Amino acid sequence: MSSKQARASRSGCPISTALELVGDPWSLLIVRDLLFKKLHTFKEFAAAGEGIASNILAERLQRLEANGIVSKHADRQDQRRYVYRLTQKGFDLGPVLMELVIWAAKHEKTAAPEPIVREMKSRRRQLLGKLRREWQNGEDRS
Amino acid sequence: MSSKQARASRSGCPISTALELVGDPWSLLIVRDLLFKKLHTFKEFAAAGEGIASNILAERLQRLEANGIVSKHADRQDQRRYVYRLTQKGFDLGPVLMELVIWAAKHEKTAAPEPIVREMKSRRRQLLGKLRREWQNGEDRS
Repeated sequence: MSSKQARASRSGCPISTALELVGDPWSLLIVRDLLFKKLHTFKEFAAAGEGIASNILAERLQRLEANGIVSKHADRQDQRRYVYRLTQKGFDLGPVLMELVIWAAKHEKTAAPEPIVREMKSRRRQLLGKLRREWQNGEDRS
Repeated sequence: MSSKQARASRSGCPISTALELVGDPWSLLIVRDLLFKKLHTFKEFAAAGEGIASNILAERLQRLEANGIVSKHADRQDQRRYVYRLTQKGFDLGPVLMELVIWAAKHEKTAAPEPIVREMKSRRRQLLGKLRREWQNGEDRS
């Protein structure tokens, strides 16, 4: 699958381009669910605690798939069910999410456990390596 | 100024909390304009090339100010004009923006100059130090 897509961006600015793809809160929360919470199904995303409406969740999953950020597969155990996986492009949003965690933990009251925030700050590469292995294992199973 | 604010977040998740504050594309584009493009006035943001409508820009600036991400000052040269500055909390969004640049440059066609993307990847600390000095100098002048 080709990863670089031609796209009409407002300005060609990479930040603007990125925000056109994931600049709504729900999209990044779905990526969070896949990457950190290991959730994989529509039902799991819907129950992930942020109160997303079903129609919005369905639309966002479609858009994330169309933009090459998630892929959709029939579940091996139950062919009527779909599971979602992060693509490499989706997995590569990990550092963006980690920086959002670090920022929020510094400036807002959150439920982020201090040891995890510390790990994101000072052992970033190791943490990304661990997430990568978990992501690849998940890919192998699906 | 107190930086940690109590806030009713949907889930207490730090990513969700961060996205409640800057999870719309315009807010992060305004932070980008302040941090990288050194723009400071309403007129400059409006002309920054992304086609933001005036009423949305005004609303976003108000929200960013209410959330402690930007501060608003009368211009020294022209007291009828306002200039906006990043607060420390706003400046701390720099790493989030840098990760968005790196991600978009890897996976999408953008106008991001390759040397700058490389610098963000491999000389991140130095680049943040340079941005910090520029930001502090701007603060002193305003």
